[in-house]
Amino acid sequence: MNKHFVIIGGDAAGMSAASKARRTNPDLIIDVFEKGNWASYGACGLPYYLKGDIKELRDLIAKTPEEFMQKNIHLHLKHEVTRIHPEEKYVIIKNHSGKIKVSFDSLLISTGARAGRPNIEGIDSLGVFTLHDMDSAREIQNYLKEYSPKSAVVLGGGYIGIEMLEALFSRGIEMHLVELLPHILSPFGIDISRKVEEHLKQYADLHLEQSVHSINRLDKGKLSVKLNNGTITTEMVLVAAGIIPEVSLAEEAGIQCGLTRAIATDELGRTNFPFIYAAGDCAEVKNMVTGKPDYVPLALAANRHGRSIGRTVGGQPTLLAPVAGTALLKVFQLEVARTGITDPEVARKHKFNPIKVTVDSHSRASYYPASKPIKISLLADRDSSRILGAGMVGEEGVSKRIDIISAALSGSYTVDQLESLDLAYAPPFGPAWDPVLTAARVLNQKLSFL
Amino acid sequence: MNKHFVIIGGDAAGMSAASKARRTNPDLIIDVFEKGNWASYGACGLPYYLKGDIKELRDLIAKTPEEFMQKNIHLHLKHEVTRIHPEEKYVIIKNHSGKIKVSFDSLLISTGARAGRPNIEGIDSLGVFTLHDMDSAREIQNYLKEYSPKSAVVLGGGYIGIEMLEALFSRGIEMHLVELLPHILSPFGIDISRKVEEHLKQYADLHLEQSVHSINRLDKGKLSVKLNNGTITTEMVLVAAGIIPEVSLAEEAGIQCGLTRAIATDELGRTNFPFIYAAGDCAEVKNMVTGKPDYVPLALAANRHGRSIGRTVGGQPTLLAPVAGTALLKVFQLEVARTGITDPEVARKHKFNPIKVTVDSHSRASYYPASKPIKISLLADRDSSRILGAGMVGEEGVSKRIDIISAALSGSYTVDQLESLDLAYAPPFGPAWDPVLTAARVLNQKLSFL
Repeated sequence: MNKHFVIIGGDAAGMSAASKARRTNPDLIIDVFEKGNWASYGACGLPYYLKGDIKELRDLIAKTPEEFMQKNIHLHLKHEVTRIHPEEKYVIIKNHSGKIKVSFDSLLISTGARAGRPNIEGIDSLGVFTLHDMDSAREIQNYLKEYSPKSAVVLGGGYIGIEMLEALFSRGIEMHLVELLPHILSPFGIDISRKVEEHLKQYADLHLEQSVHSINRLDKGKLSVKLNNGTITTEMVLVAAGIIPEVSLAEEAGIQCGLTRAIATDELGRTNFPFIYAAGDCAEVKNMVTGKPDYVPLALAANRHGRSIGRTVGGQPTLLAPVAGTALLKVFQLEVARTGITDPEVARKHKFNPIKVTVDSHSRASYYPASKPIKISLLADRDSSRILGAGMVGEEGVSKRIDIISAALSGSYTVDQLESLDLAYAPPFGPAWDPVLTAARVLNQKLSFL
Repeated sequence: MNKHFVIIGGDAAGMSAASKARRTNPDLIIDVFEKGNWASYGACGLPYYLKGDIKELRDLIAKTPEEFMQKNIHLHLKHEVTRIHPEEKYVIIKNHSGKIKVSFDSLLISTGARAGRPNIEGIDSLGVFTLHDMDSAREIQNYLKEYSPKSAVVLGGGYIGIEMLEALFSRGIEMHLVELLPHILSPFGIDISRKVEEHLKQYADLHLEQSVHSINRLDKGKLSVKLNNGTITTEMVLVAAGIIPEVSLAEEAGIQCGLTRAIATDELGRTNFPFIYAAGDCAEVKNMVTGKPDYVPLALAANRHGRSIGRTVGGQPTLLAPVAGTALLKVFQLEVARTGITDPEVARKHKFNPIKVTVDSHSRASYYPASKPIKISLLADRDSSRILGAGMVGEEGVSKRIDIISAALSGSYTVDQLESLDLAYAPPFGPAWDPVLTAARVLNQKLSFL
């Protein structure tokens, strides 16, 4: 009898696994059970839908269930897996007509994550939203159309919060951003965060180091958001307080989570049951710099690990690539990026002896018109001289420049090796000494003076 | 007595060496002899000066002789070294007042290159130019102002020829480009060249596989350029037929050149006389991919090797970094880039067993507005699976994307390792699978089917 590959969750990891398993092994029976109404869509595009850059939610869909069916992949929407029985190798599924039992040979848990909803009084009020999936995006869109809020508060200065701030500002809404920590975008490193804050102040009131005590719905569509210091009166609240791996189904079945609270997996993506895999925003990954398990819920890793597991299940065992945590976002006129470890404190926790420089350079040759500043923070280990990570910010030339560092992390390059890279030069695109080389050079000088 | 470091030539390599030697060793006596009127300028900016993007030639000067003097570096313009006496360790210099003999302890030959002037009848006619330095740029500028040519012919489809084509077109001049080979920009790889040719056709008449038989000055400021097929009547000719390392001074002194006809050096930049160094456009470099001597006259290597030699002469021996031949240029709306080996024939010459893919991808997520095509040619060695090089072309997102490949070449990454890089993703800047990852994936698939 043909082997049965069952996948729980039809987003990036799940559908990548299904597609790759199919290509690797034409004989597999592949079923994907997705509890929601949507599958195979680009969640990273949701802020741009709300901004108006993308007209229809369906434009975000990569492949429809019919297209998957043509490849002999059974994608079942509105089918919720309610129980995994690992020993007996079956799952229980609830759909419109009741419960079904489905056996599997291999199982992939790609249940994703849910938006964090902090325990704040009034967080369930009308006009308070989280953006996490297609349905919530539609709800927000409907509210925007119906109520035309003139002001909004974003709770959380992570990348989704900031992308939403830009989206709503672009619709003419007066914006506030509330961040619990002293700085927004803390994983990008303090120098980068400060630069972004400076830029954001043109577009929004920033409330840093502020926790929210309560949200109250007033009359006339107003909401009152009470902070440590003062109160904001607004007409909409968007909660972007991080995401939490969706692991309850796995935990109930005795599948182990790691220290990060996401599902622990081995180098092939297997859980403590070797025929049950996990990938995407519900699972841990291996950090490229520390070599240890980490939680890095980003699109590329989910896609890639899904593919690798699909290949393994299809019969060609494939190791999961480590993850550097490379991230990138647009913040109005700025490009903001990070990779690896950017915070000396985090480096010390991982037993590195960090040394950091922050360098200001330019996006074009000094004599070429319209050059823009680029700021780079570069972190290395003093003892081994190995590059640990970087943050960057600038109006142009940042988005792919971060990938030079990411490529260097993959090979554990030293500062010397980074400084020796033969990078491209032409006056319209950078100085002869690329900003990355300048940062490496300054860091090398600092290292040699120790 | 303090040691004397003499440098012949005041451009990228020479002035970088002077500056670094000074920082490394405050006691050195440093003299730079430059035969021309200019030193320490950004030669790569010259086409942009002629385009009008840069107002004054002096804007291209990085540092003046006075600024060097403040650092105790003696920069002598209009001082031509006419003879090197290696055994006796002195040079003969000709200046306005006659000849001087100057002794040295260490000597750097950074005499650069000269523009190639093919042996064509009439190449010395009025209205025929080469662009190679500040003076020639000024001559061209003066001619453009005085004669206001309505059409021009560029001979040579290398990057200087193409940058000049754009510069002159931008001044309203009708352009022709003549290339001897079947394609322009051959070091970028055939697929990239074709794409650029297609783009250039909007701006110029291309005459490929055409040699020039003669140039004749007609009356009324016209020039007649006779090709294999037909004749172009024009009002200006720009010869951009490559450059030739300026080694006559070195050869006369018994300093050895390599197979490339540039000065041969060891890993410290030393010639066959261990106290005589060579760097920049007159010297060979070590190719990062082949490990063999190569001639790669580009700005970054000249700067970098000058610095390294300055440091060595200052007392801290520093190896010269190998060069991948990474190059980048703007061609109207296109960004065009290359690194490593892009031509399977060249790879075979170096005993590789090449395999190539050319992949079309996009600069943004599929659903994000205004995405532009990106084309990548990626070359690897079948036997080792090692990446050998790449060419890229697109309207955005190419300039720094090539550096991902360049960083991979530095570590001799395999196709697998390139495919596993954790590259940045955000919808405004690329698809979740970056074009580089897609190219690596397609190449990997092709490799695994062999």
